[in-house]
Amino acid sequence: MKQGIFISLEGDDGAGKTTAARNIKNELEKMGLEVVYTREPGGSPIAEQIRQILLDPANKAMDAKTEAVLYAASRNQHVKDTILPALQEGKIVLCDRFLDSSIAYQGYGRKLGADRIEHLNDFVLEGLRPDLTLFFEVSDETGHKRMVSRGDMNRLDQESRQFHEDVRQGFRKIKSNPANTERIHVVNAEGSVEEVLEQSMKIICEFIKSKKDFDHE
Amino acid sequence: MKQGIFISLEGDDGAGKTTAARNIKNELEKMGLEVVYTREPGGSPIAEQIRQILLDPANKAMDAKTEAVLYAASRNQHVKDTILPALQEGKIVLCDRFLDSSIAYQGYGRKLGADRIEHLNDFVLEGLRPDLTLFFEVSDETGHKRMVSRGDMNRLDQESRQFHEDVRQGFRKIKSNPANTERIHVVNAEGSVEEVLEQSMKIICEFIKSKKDFDHE
Repeated sequence: MKQGIFISLEGDDGAGKTTAARNIKNELEKMGLEVVYTREPGGSPIAEQIRQILLDPANKAMDAKTEAVLYAASRNQHVKDTILPALQEGKIVLCDRFLDSSIAYQGYGRKLGADRIEHLNDFVLEGLRPDLTLFFEVSDETGHKRMVSRGDMNRLDQESRQFHEDVRQGFRKIKSNPANTERIHVVNAEGSVEEVLEQSMKIICEFIKSKKDFDHE
Repeated sequence: MKQGIFISLEGDDGAGKTTAARNIKNELEKMGLEVVYTREPGGSPIAEQIRQILLDPANKAMDAKTEAVLYAASRNQHVKDTILPALQEGKIVLCDRFLDSSIAYQGYGRKLGADRIEHLNDFVLEGLRPDLTLFFEVSDETGHKRMVSRGDMNRLDQESRQFHEDVRQGFRKIKSNPANTERIHVVNAEGSVEEVLEQSMKIICEFIKSKKDFDHE
C-alpha cells in the first residue's frame, strides 16, 4: 500500500501557521508533490459542525471536559474522512493543528492534564501520530500582538492572557518530552514570512529525503 | 449538603420511556416532590447543539467513534449544567437515557465494546452513576412497531433492524451484569400506560423509602 506523509503544524495562535501552511503547500506542489491542506478542529463536513460549537463565542458556558471531548470527536471524523484516505493515496497531508494542540490547550491551558488528554485521544487515534511536526515558536509578546491584530477572535482566542501563556508553556513541555524529539522540529516564527518558509522547507525536505519508502510517483 | 435522587430511564426506542417519564413526574409532584425531567442527548444549551449533530439524518457519514465521543461530550455538559445542580438542590432528576444507552448503542450496537465505552465515559463522569435505573423492556416486535408508528425517525432510529436487535441484546447484558443488580429494575413495558406507570411508581417509592437520608422538605 502506498503511504503518504503526515505533517502537522503546531503553535499558539499568532504564530503564523496558516500563512506558512499555504506557502509550504505551494512549494511542495512546485516539486510535483500532491498535498492536502487541512485543519483542526474541522476538516470534514461533520467535523466542521463540531468546530462551530467549539469556536462559537456564545458558548461561554462550555465545560473544559466538553471542550476536550469535542476536539477528540472532531479529530476522529477528520482522520477517518480526510487524513487516512489522503495518506493511503500517497499524498502529503499538511494539518494545521493536531493532537499536540489538544495537549497544550486542554491538558495545560485548561489544566486537565497532558496524560489524560493523550489517553482520551487514544480511543480515537489508536496510535496514529504525525510523521513530522513543525512547532512554530514566537515570544508571548509577538503571539499576543498578532492574535489581537487579526481581529474576529473565536471563543478560545478570547481566553485570558494567562491561559495563552499556559498554552505556550504547554507546547514547550511537549517539545521537551524525549518521546517527541524525533518528530518535533522547531521553526523560529519571529522572522519574516520568507524566513519562516525557508526554515520549514529545509526541515520538510530533509525528512522526505530520509523517508526512503516515500514514493510519490 | 442536601442530596437529591438521580433516576435514569433506559430501554430501546419504542419502549415508551418518554410517556412514562411525563406520568412519573406528575405522580412525584403530587407527592410534593421537586422533579427535574431531562433527556439525553441534550438537556442543556450546549448539549442540545451536540444533539442536533448526533441525530441529524443527514449525518450518515458519522463514524461510530465520533458518535460515541459526541455522546460523552453532550453527557458531560448535561451533568455539569443540569443534573448536578438539581441533585445539589435536593431534587429528583428523571433522566431519559444515560450511560447505559451509550453502552447498549455504541458498545453493543456499534460493537465498540462495552468496557471501552464505560472507560471513555469515566473521563467525564468520574464515577457518577444514577441511584436508580428503570429498564423498560418490550419485545423486539413491539419496540419495532412503536418506533415505526411514531414516524419522524432520527439518524439512529433509521439504523437497521439488526442494529436495534443488538442494542436490545446489549441492554439485556447490562441488566444481567452483577455490578448493576441493585441499581437496575425492570419495567415490563408491553402493558398499558397505566400498568407501566404503576410498576414504575412502585419501584421508585420503595427506593425513596429505603433512602433514609433523602429529605425533600
